[in-house]
Amino acid sequence: MSEHIVSSYDKDLQNLRRSIAEMGGIAEKMVADSGQALLRRDAALAQAVIAVDSRLDGLQREIEEKAILLIARRQPLAVDLRETISAIRVSGDLERIGDLAKNVAKRVVAISDQVQLQKIVVGVEHMNELVQAQLKDVLDAYATQDTVAALDVWARDGGIDALYTSLFRELLTYMMEDPRNITFCTHLLFCAKNVERIGDHTTNIAETIHYLATGEPLGSERPKNDASNYTVVNPPSA
Amino acid sequence: MSEHIVSSYDKDLQNLRRSIAEMGGIAEKMVADSGQALLRRDAALAQAVIAVDSRLDGLQREIEEKAILLIARRQPLAVDLRETISAIRVSGDLERIGDLAKNVAKRVVAISDQVQLQKIVVGVEHMNELVQAQLKDVLDAYATQDTVAALDVWARDGGIDALYTSLFRELLTYMMEDPRNITFCTHLLFCAKNVERIGDHTTNIAETIHYLATGEPLGSERPKNDASNYTVVNPPSA
Repeated sequence: MSEHIVSSYDKDLQNLRRSIAEMGGIAEKMVADSGQALLRRDAALAQAVIAVDSRLDGLQREIEEKAILLIARRQPLAVDLRETISAIRVSGDLERIGDLAKNVAKRVVAISDQVQLQKIVVGVEHMNELVQAQLKDVLDAYATQDTVAALDVWARDGGIDALYTSLFRELLTYMMEDPRNITFCTHLLFCAKNVERIGDHTTNIAETIHYLATGEPLGSERPKNDASNYTVVNPPSA
Repeated sequence: MSEHIVSSYDKDLQNLRRSIAEMGGIAEKMVADSGQALLRRDAALAQAVIAVDSRLDGLQREIEEKAILLIARRQPLAVDLRETISAIRVSGDLERIGDLAKNVAKRVVAISDQVQLQKIVVGVEHMNELVQAQLKDVLDAYATQDTVAALDVWARDGGIDALYTSLFRELLTYMMEDPRNITFCTHLLFCAKNVERIGDHTTNIAETIHYLATGEPLGSERPKNDASNYTVVNPPSA
């Protein structure tokens, strides 16, 4: 392979990296803004989150197309092939993260004039902040190909799952206390679920970083602490 | 390009098609079984759905790997490249459909000893049947590359979204009527949301069929009738 071709492939990879970094920046801002919109009942900020999502969708399609053309035209081997595949995977996760943040923003619009339980909103926003840190750390790990940092994100996500299960129980309790809380708490439940799923996508990205660095999938199944699927809360007996 | 290579690529594509068909069969059965498990409160059937999901995950990874190796080694052009890319996309959607059916099954296990509102369970199962029909039709359309049938699935999904929004309102009303319904109805809300999202993945597959046949993405944004994100239900004033 001539040096000319090698350096030209490097340039193509750099372009992919730049597009992923742009997607990452947009996704981070969407997650942070949707959390702030929820906390401050800011419907205008929520609308801004909803509006920006199409940019993320466009970038994802662009990355996927470019990466596949690259594979077809250049027949990259080993680490170049893995980096190109990784770009496709990571852009897919970032696009889904944007969708989930957009869904939180839509619910902020719906509940802005409902009875508010600020204490539990703070709980969801706290969870959102943890997920923002996960997202930032995993994007940094991707940019520097730091598998140790990636594995740390992967392991930390269990804490977010556990927090979600505890919020799930708390929200059901508020609903049982007063029927006027039900609509608000239901939307908040879906918000919390969306945030928990953003956390799952950060672990997907961590798994991609591991694959990129080693060529092997992460062997073990990630320990899941989201027990909410199985959680039952009963009202106090009358 | 020699005839030998062409027919060998055809054989590779046939293998991909066979694996997609296998995934489709498993996903269809998971969706049907999770609906039946919910309707009949059958925790054993639900456990079987949960157990089979790893097979779907394995097939998806296999298809993705094979397809990318195929692109890298053979440099397919035009329709062969599109079919290979389509296999990656469709296998991703089928894997997500399996995850969603598995999540319904997990909730069946959780609520099997809760107060049951059979009327609303029947509503969710009805929605599930419509989604099963969508999934069957879109898999048939993929196998025969029938874009007309694919567009029909794509357009029909709006009806499922509208049904979900109406179930969402109904479930919130039941929760307001009696706090003992809250845990059950919350899990049912998530089940209904999962089924609605399975419908969304059938429209993704329809879009992939359109891309496969024409080389162009479906231009217009699909009309969404899921207004539940914005839905507010108030308890009757005391």
